[in-house]
Amino acid sequence: MSARNQIVHHVFFWLKNPLSVDDAAQLIDGLKTLKAIPQIKNLLIGTPASTMKRDVVDNSFQVSELMYFDDVEDQDIYQTHPVHVAFVEKYGHLWNKVVVYDMIANEPEE
Amino acid sequence: MSARNQIVHHVFFWLKNPLSVDDAAQLIDGLKTLKAIPQIKNLLIGTPASTMKRDVVDNSFQVSELMYFDDVEDQDIYQTHPVHVAFVEKYGHLWNKVVVYDMIANEPEE
Repeated sequence: MSARNQIVHHVFFWLKNPLSVDDAAQLIDGLKTLKAIPQIKNLLIGTPASTMKRDVVDNSFQVSELMYFDDVEDQDIYQTHPVHVAFVEKYGHLWNKVVVYDMIANEPEE
Repeated sequence: MSARNQIVHHVFFWLKNPLSVDDAAQLIDGLKTLKAIPQIKNLLIGTPASTMKRDVVDNSFQVSELMYFDDVEDQDIYQTHPVHVAFVEKYGHLWNKVVVYDMIANEPEE
C-alpha cells in the first residue's frame, strides 16, 4: 500500500451529539462495515490524537476514517457501493457535518 | 504500518499563489526533505485527486502531506526536529493557510 498514485480518502465526522461516547462508538461500528467493500485497500478508523494544541490543528471532529484506493475509479465505485449506501442510511443521523479530502499520492516514488 | 494506535498526521496547504505550478513543486521538494526525520514511519505527499465533486469534498488545497508516527511523543518530537524547523523556515513563505488533523487509529485491530 501507500504506493505512488494511490488515492487517499480522508473523512472527518462531527457528531450531532459531540459528547456522546455511545454515538461515537456506533459510528465506529458502522465504519467497520465498510471493510466489506473490495475497492478499499486499507481502512483506518480513529479519533482525535492528543498531540500538542496548536492554532493550525483542527481537533474538533469526533471520528475519522482514512482509506486508500488504487485509483479514482475505485473511489467513485465505493461512493455508490451498496454497503456504503447502507452505511450512510443507517448511521447518517449521527453526524451533522462531514468534511472529505481526496489526495492523490505523488510520493513516494516506487 | 497502519497499526492500531498509530498517529496519522495529515496536513493540507493552501498556497499564496494557488495557481503556481512552480510554487507547488517547490513545496513538494521541501516536504521530501522531511524524509530524513526518523520518527516519521511513512510519508505520502500529494495533491487533490480528481474524484467526483461533492459538497462535502474540500479540494481547495494545493498540496498535502500524510505521515504516520508510532505515538504522540514521536509526533511532538517531529514538530521541533531541526529538519522540520528548517523546512518551515525555508518554505513557509509559499503558503498562507495550513490545516492539520491528527488522528489516532483505533482500527484496525492487530
